[in-house]
Order: sequence, then structure tokens, then C-alpha cells
Amino acid sequence: MIDIDKMRADTPAASRLAYLHNAGAALMPAPVVAAMKEHIDLESEIGGYAAADRESDRLEAVYGSVARLLNAAPDEIALVENATVAWQMAFYSLPFREGDRILTAEAEYAANYVAFLQVAKRTGAVIDVVPSDATGELDVGALERMIDERVKLIAITWVPTNGGLVNPAAAIGRIARAHGIPYLLDACQAVGQMAVDVEAIGCDMLSATGRKFLRGPRGTGFLYVRRALLQQLEPPMIDHFAAPWVSRDSYQLRDDARRFETWENNYTARLGLGAAVDYALDIGMASIAQRCRGLAERLRTGLAAIPGVTIRDLGRRPGAIVSFTMDGHEADTIVSSAAAAGITIGASDPASTRIDAEARSLPPLVRASPHYYNTEAEIDRLIDHLASVARR
Amino acid sequence: MIDIDKMRADTPAASRLAYLHNAGAALMPAPVVAAMKEHIDLESEIGGYAAADRESDRLEAVYGSVARLLNAAPDEIALVENATVAWQMAFYSLPFREGDRILTAEAEYAANYVAFLQVAKRTGAVIDVVPSDATGELDVGALERMIDERVKLIAITWVPTNGGLVNPAAAIGRIARAHGIPYLLDACQAVGQMAVDVEAIGCDMLSATGRKFLRGPRGTGFLYVRRALLQQLEPPMIDHFAAPWVSRDSYQLRDDARRFETWENNYTARLGLGAAVDYALDIGMASIAQRCRGLAERLRTGLAAIPGVTIRDLGRRPGAIVSFTMDGHEADTIVSSAAAAGITIGASDPASTRIDAEARSLPPLVRASPHYYNTEAEIDRLIDHLASVARR
Repeated sequence: MIDIDKMRADTPAASRLAYLHNAGAALMPAPVVAAMKEHIDLESEIGGYAAADRESDRLEAVYGSVARLLNAAPDEIALVENATVAWQMAFYSLPFREGDRILTAEAEYAANYVAFLQVAKRTGAVIDVVPSDATGELDVGALERMIDERVKLIAITWVPTNGGLVNPAAAIGRIARAHGIPYLLDACQAVGQMAVDVEAIGCDMLSATGRKFLRGPRGTGFLYVRRALLQQLEPPMIDHFAAPWVSRDSYQLRDDARRFETWENNYTARLGLGAAVDYALDIGMASIAQRCRGLAERLRTGLAAIPGVTIRDLGRRPGAIVSFTMDGHEADTIVSSAAAAGITIGASDPASTRIDAEARSLPPLVRASPHYYNTEAEIDRLIDHLASVARR
Repeated sequence: MIDIDKMRADTPAASRLAYLHNAGAALMPAPVVAAMKEHIDLESEIGGYAAADRESDRLEAVYGSVARLLNAAPDEIALVENATVAWQMAFYSLPFREGDRILTAEAEYAANYVAFLQVAKRTGAVIDVVPSDATGELDVGALERMIDERVKLIAITWVPTNGGLVNPAAAIGRIARAHGIPYLLDACQAVGQMAVDVEAIGCDMLSATGRKFLRGPRGTGFLYVRRALLQQLEPPMIDHFAAPWVSRDSYQLRDDARRFETWENNYTARLGLGAAVDYALDIGMASIAQRCRGLAERLRTGLAAIPGVTIRDLGRRPGAIVSFTMDGHEADTIVSSAAAAGITIGASDPASTRIDAEARSLPPLVRASPHYYNTEAEIDRLIDHLASVARR
């Protein structure tokens, strides 16, 4: 059972705002804010290097926290500036040759897709999009049939940015494992919303952000790389932290996933990330996932009763991102009117997930993303607000 | 004239510590700390996306501030996580082929040198180290004689990490311009310590950090790329911010230097960086440079009188980094004893500047780096402390 009152007391803005934009950037709980401000104060008092030295145990513990969150080992974790850098450091480490195939899904995120295009242009690799099944999830049977010896990577967004879809990450992992194909999972919208277990999923690489459902600071992200794979990967760019300069003409890559990091970091943000992960782990990911889905379902049920509203979520069991359109009302207008009513939601542009958006002829979507600290009353406030907009 | 009392009032720790470690990470002035904490509060109050939207003018102004600092245009500036990422995004954008030559200097920083080695291994390019002249500065005549049509990059650290050396950045720029060779200047230890004018220097790319002499936050850095060059450079890694996904099979790189950025950022740190740059510009870089050199010279004069101390700084006119050794006392021991006496200094390991360190058979060096907010009395405290250590 989640102690909602305590969680809301830790989230002062929750008393003023119905904050349903956790797929954008969630509200940070008080311990995250405190961890950051305390470190800024410490840096002001003794300097940035001494502050990092003094907090070295806590900074080291962040790797352990992220590892626990993912069921990985601390040496398989790199802490980086954001989920994009995490994903890039993994993806651009992989060697591709002409004719190699990259398999991805229809709702793949724009950031990843332009990187595919760049590498395809550079190397002659090709991008093949696995079709979705009738529910909108990646079609696992189709994926299996597309596998051949030219497939050098399966790269999937687990929970795409533009709606409730939860792709079958573990079923994909079984296929990747069976064929020995590296599997890169973008878990940006999944971490903090649901349990993430890299062993159960069978992914080799996983990237994620701190600022969304994990409730961490902006400008934080992390990468998991399975130990057996990471020592085969040379990062696309290195510094003397990733690869110490061991003799005049040679460097030696670190043995652990920190080969994907740089020497200098924002330790304030890193401590905030650690506090956010610990906060989520203390609550328990199973409880969080259950409450997130329950609130999202309540919202979908309410939306379904509003004339002119079309829910756009795909998949057998949608998660905590609720996407919809309303006839005669543009997404941005709805977001603004909700903001004026003290309700924070967002919009998703077709260019974020171009292939899916074109296949479904999607306009910009309204995107509401509740979290465990939201209340049923807040969900109902949004439903009531949208019903009143629909009547205008 | 710098109002030292006001600067010290803005730096509360200055009343408790003789902080002479500005080449590591300087003490942040109060406006930098305030800018960061205020943004964390705003994010807590309205969420991370709304906070960035509300502060969009101030966030945009950071580009203008950095551009003013460098005498560049705002569209030539990218704001990134640290100086290493800034340098990497420029360096790894450059195309190299077998036999291409990269010219660098003896005291080049380890982070950069391992990247040279990686690219040399990948492409067959070769690294040629320009010898130093009798004073220890890069030998401009030797550089000129080394130029041929195979030289595809001149990459130099302006102020190396391990001492007072200030390489002749503008003389190097004249040679680079005359021969049409791209010129990448690592200005990590120069910005905030001295006036930096990319037009006067003639560099095409310049990387720097926020945390050192600029007195900004850890985890901040920036890259300047001359407009004429930047549109020829495809970043080594891209996302949909650097290169919007304009149609299913194509992306279009941004026209400005933000093609070297990613979409997600730590806006708290970025606002801190902006406040730091504005603070320095308000004081004036000429005044800062004069005072930094004056304090460093006072320190060198005092050190020269201590038996057993050897000053290790090179160059005709050393800057604000003072490096030395003391017979019979290891660098780390000296740093610790100073810390116990309330004096913060640092050490520089030979592996940071391996070629120079090997050429000069350097052990770890003690490194003291005063800034304008330090006082003559603090310099004298360090001198007195070292004299007492030497007598032990």
C-alpha cells in the first residue's frame, strides 16, 4: 500500500496543481530537491572537488541504486547526462557494415531514428521496421520471421513517447537471445513507471532518463550494458576517464560500463538521481506500477464517455501514458486550457514518432500521464475539465 | 578596479578558506548558487518543462553571454555537459583519412590525446607533436615548418592543466589561417582567467568548462564553432534536436552550433553557467586577468625564496596556475597539510600531460591557482605554510 498522503506531503506542488505530465518531467519529491540543494551548498562551502570527494560514498552508491532498480550489477551501469546520450553511447559503439540490418518498431522515438539514419548513411546498414500486430504492439511473430544473419541489432522503445503502448520487451528479448543478436532497449518512459528487470527482459543494453517517471532531475540519464557485451564495445568517443592514457601511444579502456562516461560530471544532479531511485525503490516498483495503471485506466474510462474524444493508446495493456484527441479542439489548446484550470498535461507531436504517426494519420495528441502521487480526484478533475471543453 | 570586498562577500567560503584551487573548480559566487537553487525551486513548483518554458528568455540569454565572453555570435555556441563533450563533439566531427596529420603540443591534455589515439587507430591518421621552444611554449617556427598538405587539424591546449604555461594561441591561429587548416583550441583553463577573443586568436573551434576560472557549476561546458566551418561538420552522434527528423528517411541538421547538443539538458546548471559568465563580464576580463597574474606572480616570488622548492611553470608570461615541487615532500602530502591549515590547493598527476611530464621527468606537481577574489594575505599564508613545511 502506498502512503499517498506522505507522498503528496513530499511533493508540495501537488496541493496546488493536478500534475499529470509525468511522461514529460515529473515533480521531484522533497528528498531529491534536498539532495541537490545540499550538494550545491557543500560545493559553495568547500569547493566542487572537495565536495565530490566528501560525498564519494553517496556518489558511488548511485550506481548501486540504479543497478538495483534494473536488477543489474553496479559495474554494468554508466551515469550520463540524459537518456539520449546513454542510448547514443551504446548504439554508436556497435560496428555496422554495408547490408547489416537494424530492426526497430513502428513507434520508435525520433532521437533514435535519426541516429539509425545517420549510421545507415555512413555504413550502408539498413533499417527495417518490424510491423505492429492488430493491437498496435510490435508483432513478435513478424520479428521472428525477419531475423536472418544480417540482423546486427534489435533496437526498440519499450514505452513509446506518444501513448500507452507497452511493447513486449521480454518476448523480444527471448528472440534476441535465441539468435545471439544485441538488443538495445530504450526504457526512457518505462523506468519509474513499472518494474524493470534486465534479466527477465533479456536486453543487452538499456537506456533511461531520470526526469520522467523516476521523478529525478532534468539532465540525468543512465545506461545499462551487460557485462559480457560491454567489454567488446569501444565507445564512439573517449576521454582519459573512459580510457586512461597508459603510455605515450596507448590508452586502455576501463573494464566497467563507466567507459561510456566522461571524467567531469554534474554531481549535484547525480545525487538527485540517486535520491529519486532510492525513493522509488522504497515505495516498491510493483506498487507504483499497479497504481499508475489504475489511475490511467480511470482516466481512459472517463475519457471514453466524453463525446468527440478518441483515445489513441495502443496495445493489450496500456501503461500510464494516456493519449487522445478531441474533435474540433487542437492538442495545444487543450493543454493550455487545462493549465489555466491548474491541470498540467502535455502534447505529443507526430514528428516524435513519425512512422507510427504517419501510419495512423495522427495529429498532435494530448498526453496525460498520471503517477502514484496523483489522486483519483485529480483524474476526475481532468475528466470534468475535458468534458466542459467538449461542450463548448 | 575590482571591488574585492564585494566579490568576497559574494563568496562566503572565502572568509573561512584560502581557496587557491580555481584551476580545479572555483568557488561559485552567490548569484550562481542563487540561479541554480531558484530554478530547482521553480521546477519543484511547476514541473521541469514548465520551468524551462518560463525561463526560456534567460536560458536563451546564456548563449548570448557565452558569445560575448568569446567575441563570437550566439549561433556559434553550443552548451553541453562539460568541456570534454564540447571538445569531443568538435574533434570527432572532423573527417580523417589514412596519413592525415594532427598537430598538437607537448603539454596536450590526456582527455584529448586519447581521443587522438582512438581516431588514429580508426582512420590511420597520425599525431605529430610540435616541439616546445626554450621557454616551454609551443615553438611557432617549428609549427610553421611542420605544415604540409597532409595536416588536417591543429589542436592545442591553450593553458595546459599542469602549470602556468600559456601557449601562443593567436600566433598559432595566424598559421592555421594562412594555410586554411582547422584549428581546435582547448580553452578549459583559459576562460575566466583571461580575455578570450576567437577573432583575435583565429581559432575555428574552442572548448571550455564552466567550473574552473569562470566560477560556474560542475557539469557545464561550451563549444564555439566558427559559422563558416560548423555547417560543414556533421556531429559524430545526433538526436532529433541536433537533426530534426523531417521525413521518414531523412534528417536535417540544424544550421547553428546547437547541432552539437542533445534535446534534454540540465537547465539548472545552464542558468548557473549563465550567471557565472555574466558575473565575470560585469567585472571585466581585463581586470580579472591582471589581478590573477599579479597574485600568481606574488606566489611565485614567495616560492622562489623557499629552500627546496622548484617552480615548474613554463612560458614567457605564465598565467594563474602555479606549479611546483618541494624536495623531500610529495605533492599529495603538501596538499593535505595545506588543507589542514585551511588552504585549498591541488595536485597535477603526470598522466594528465604525459608527453610533457616524460620530457621533463615530472613527478606529481603541487598546483596552486589564485583568482581575483583571493587576497595578497591568502597568497602569503600559503607561502608561509610552505616555508614551514620546508623547514620540517
